[in-house]
Amino acid sequence: MRIAIAGVGLIGGSIGLAAKARLDGAEIIGFDPSPEVLDLATERGAIDLHATSLADALEGAEACFLCAPVDALPGLVTEALAAAPEACVVTDVGSTKRQIVASTGDERFIGGHPVAGSEAVGVEHSRADLFEGASWYLTPGERSSGVLYERLHRTIADLGARPHAIDAEAHDRLLAKISHLPHVVANVLVELAGEQGEGLPRVGPSFRDATRVAGANSQIWTGIYTTNAEAIADEADAAAARLQEIAGLLRSGDESAIEDWNEAAKADRRRLLEADLEGGLLHELRVSVPNQPGIVAQVALALGRGGVNIVDLALAPAPDNRSGSITLWVAGDDAAERAAGLVRELGFPVLEVT
Amino acid sequence: MRIAIAGVGLIGGSIGLAAKARLDGAEIIGFDPSPEVLDLATERGAIDLHATSLADALEGAEACFLCAPVDALPGLVTEALAAAPEACVVTDVGSTKRQIVASTGDERFIGGHPVAGSEAVGVEHSRADLFEGASWYLTPGERSSGVLYERLHRTIADLGARPHAIDAEAHDRLLAKISHLPHVVANVLVELAGEQGEGLPRVGPSFRDATRVAGANSQIWTGIYTTNAEAIADEADAAAARLQEIAGLLRSGDESAIEDWNEAAKADRRRLLEADLEGGLLHELRVSVPNQPGIVAQVALALGRGGVNIVDLALAPAPDNRSGSITLWVAGDDAAERAAGLVRELGFPVLEVT
Repeated sequence: MRIAIAGVGLIGGSIGLAAKARLDGAEIIGFDPSPEVLDLATERGAIDLHATSLADALEGAEACFLCAPVDALPGLVTEALAAAPEACVVTDVGSTKRQIVASTGDERFIGGHPVAGSEAVGVEHSRADLFEGASWYLTPGERSSGVLYERLHRTIADLGARPHAIDAEAHDRLLAKISHLPHVVANVLVELAGEQGEGLPRVGPSFRDATRVAGANSQIWTGIYTTNAEAIADEADAAAARLQEIAGLLRSGDESAIEDWNEAAKADRRRLLEADLEGGLLHELRVSVPNQPGIVAQVALALGRGGVNIVDLALAPAPDNRSGSITLWVAGDDAAERAAGLVRELGFPVLEVT
Repeated sequence: MRIAIAGVGLIGGSIGLAAKARLDGAEIIGFDPSPEVLDLATERGAIDLHATSLADALEGAEACFLCAPVDALPGLVTEALAAAPEACVVTDVGSTKRQIVASTGDERFIGGHPVAGSEAVGVEHSRADLFEGASWYLTPGERSSGVLYERLHRTIADLGARPHAIDAEAHDRLLAKISHLPHVVANVLVELAGEQGEGLPRVGPSFRDATRVAGANSQIWTGIYTTNAEAIADEADAAAARLQEIAGLLRSGDESAIEDWNEAAKADRRRLLEADLEGGLLHELRVSVPNQPGIVAQVALALGRGGVNIVDLALAPAPDNRSGSITLWVAGDDAAERAAGLVRELGFPVLEVT
């Protein structure tokens, strides 16, 4: 299969590497505005040939991946569809889908969004296994070709990803809730804390966790905020309304209602993490460790060697290598028991939080 | 010095262990409603003697630490002050301070709040180094004794912590902003995501980071929410107002204003992390790694061996041991350069994000 990739950065390069590694007879033609990027991509084996224009790259192609920031995509899609062969499926990898899908009625176009490593940048970070197990949303339009959809779906599964078909509108609303809103909220939290008049406060681990994505890459995120503005604004309004309700709940002083609210949130978090797993019920383990460098690594290594997958982890009081307490979330009764045993073998006390 | 500790859990037990390890001639008398806890504390060496009542524990004591959830403290403070010798300083370790400080005008009482490991529970997790380098807020009242304040300050510094005097009202407003609000926001995010009608969404790393503290220990947090309700409600209202402004900004479609807002948040986050450090400017390093177990541990170990302190770290696409991309924040030009070198020696590409 001849595959054209326009924009050979982290995602484009990884598509090339994955296709070379996993698809029999794949031939990858790369196009990128930067000749240095094309050289580097060739050197890494991410592309077989490089073209000097998008139209050249598309000659004889059966699939075309457009890998560019969201705001550059509409132009690229138009250009690609004008040059692509009749039987070539054209897709993109942008993080928002409604605008791009609405921009064309061409049966060859199917929107796409691999949920993988979108923050590291550049072909030098590309990897053949970037999409292993990752969700890859596909948003066919009303007129998208069934034959081409089937080809794209199979190709993406071959790259190691799990394709999920979803309506473009539903995709953007879903992502607004579980990805874009957390980014907006992180920005708001740092803004509020940064407004302190007399010197900046010393922030703790809960603040660091909540604001890790504050001010994420503007080149990528300005496009996401702009193209999904209405859905994100709706979510921000919903969060604002809920925060005002909680302010009212707190002022009411109703202790048992406050506790119920907090317990419901605990249950929601657990359900959400479990929904992402096939490994069974989630267990929360607290490990006490001495303040020495390398302890977190030692625990992670022991669990890795024992085949236990850590779903999530949190360090307290400070998320550095010398931290004193580690909370681990592990899926499944067996894995949790094995994890606790491995940690105890290292000589650290461990407690399951229920 | 004879020290009474009422409530020998994680914090009380760690105060005992730290005092035994670091204070010459410290004698620790423990009191706890649970005899099993007292036995375990004695076994661990956290207390020398155990008392059968708070009054007994206070006989001849020069300092008394009351270590209980916030809502149990007012009763304990009254009881302790009734029984404590005239020259004994009485303090607590609750996470909110205004209510408890207002509950007494006794010159022997000084409020306290060690910012350390408040989520792990039980004397079995106590450690002599729990307070090493931790902030420990002290909130003397208008009539608190200077002599006793000086004694408490020195004792806390001897335990390894950094004492900071702060007005109780200012303490509660500060913590509302940097700790309690992030907890409320995490709860709201999981509530909104949990409301999805058709099946739960697969959440990503930004969502997991933002909601790690959702539904934190209700026994502790209901008391915090109740005793600091007004300040937290004010912060929730401020966050709600700001979210509504951002919703308006997004709907305006003003791309350059959106980018400015995101860049300002990036700068705020950086300033806040740096304020917590003495190590110089913060550097952000992105490391690409293969999907293999133990890689995160390998990187953390290499940096630990090289003496580089990781201020914060984030994993993508999934926060488990098999993740493909690691972002590290390291303080100081030298440390960042050393970190990048160590990572490259492991054979992984690394990129400084500016």
